[in-house]
Amino acid sequence: MGRTDPTRMPELMSHDRGELDALFASAIVGHVAFVSQDGHPAVLPTAVALSRDRLVVHGSTGSRWMRLVAGAPAAVSVTAVDGVIVARSTFESSLAYRSAVIFGSFQILEGDAKAAALDALINRLIPGRADEVRPSTAKELAATLVLAMPLVQWSLRVSHGWAEDPIDDVAGPAWAGHVRFGERPMTISPAPDLPAGMAIPRSITRIRGTQ
Amino acid sequence: MGRTDPTRMPELMSHDRGELDALFASAIVGHVAFVSQDGHPAVLPTAVALSRDRLVVHGSTGSRWMRLVAGAPAAVSVTAVDGVIVARSTFESSLAYRSAVIFGSFQILEGDAKAAALDALINRLIPGRADEVRPSTAKELAATLVLAMPLVQWSLRVSHGWAEDPIDDVAGPAWAGHVRFGERPMTISPAPDLPAGMAIPRSITRIRGTQ
Repeated sequence: MGRTDPTRMPELMSHDRGELDALFASAIVGHVAFVSQDGHPAVLPTAVALSRDRLVVHGSTGSRWMRLVAGAPAAVSVTAVDGVIVARSTFESSLAYRSAVIFGSFQILEGDAKAAALDALINRLIPGRADEVRPSTAKELAATLVLAMPLVQWSLRVSHGWAEDPIDDVAGPAWAGHVRFGERPMTISPAPDLPAGMAIPRSITRIRGTQ
Repeated sequence: MGRTDPTRMPELMSHDRGELDALFASAIVGHVAFVSQDGHPAVLPTAVALSRDRLVVHGSTGSRWMRLVAGAPAAVSVTAVDGVIVARSTFESSLAYRSAVIFGSFQILEGDAKAAALDALINRLIPGRADEVRPSTAKELAATLVLAMPLVQWSLRVSHGWAEDPIDDVAGPAWAGHVRFGERPMTISPAPDLPAGMAIPRSITRIRGTQ
């Protein structure tokens, strides 16, 4: 059995690339699991984006976990919580969510692929920002490690809809339904050392509340 | 060096229990990393709560990953994305976040500790719901596996505030500031098979948009 095959509730599984793209539009952070030098599992959150059919992450060249994870087996989970599925019992109540797991190894990107990945990451975080500010310097690029995992071994679980209460509970007095969480509101604050009256650039208004 | 000691940016580290509690109030989902039977790292999202100084999770007794992780070394990351720290360059821009990692082994809970953990989980998801619906049946409890990891080896990283732009950039034309994400709005929908006119119970209105 492959690593992304389900043992339970296979009806929740999907390999739909459109759904994966939609999930990455909702979730900015992924959780990277790897095996530490002492054999223990470790997990870290980091910003994720898709670039050229690869999942990409970035960090400082001084980052211990990024150096550990480069070339080693890893798993990345990207999850969006969409709401609560309320059943007539606590047992049948659950979260509405979408969650992808990608297995593979991270490889270090260089050159054009590295630049494209960094563009994907910043545009995911602040859409269009790269066109508003100075380009990164050679020193900044040299201090940045970009890792990519190809989208080969991945799967997605989507849990939405209504609870499935037993008949006795449906006939009972308890409420059931769902609660959907909408997009987070945003409060924009200029930095204290910004000259007065500077307009908020377009990229900032394009940020979307993310998970 | 201990597993929760930082190698970079130690100023972001915290062991403040109040901050940990606040993070668990923001984030309903944690990501559990473990080493799979074939030696590969694996990671899964699951609802998390704190109960009696333990991190608790639950699932079906038929869940393969829960059986794998019981008694084995694991790491859990709990992360809340609070906004975007916008610098005058893409290099200095980053996410505002709070993230905890807890290391240890999950133990199976039984009896009173199991019941308390299940109460903590449902009350985290739908506050007060356990008092509105029938108690769980013996069959439901027997089908539920509850795992706990003691809060012994953990740390927290908090990244907020303003970007630290170099002097040349501060003197330049680019905007800087931060964008804070607020609480997610909620839309409540009754199940299609609910009798007309049934009032929305108090617990549902106490749900908070979570990550």
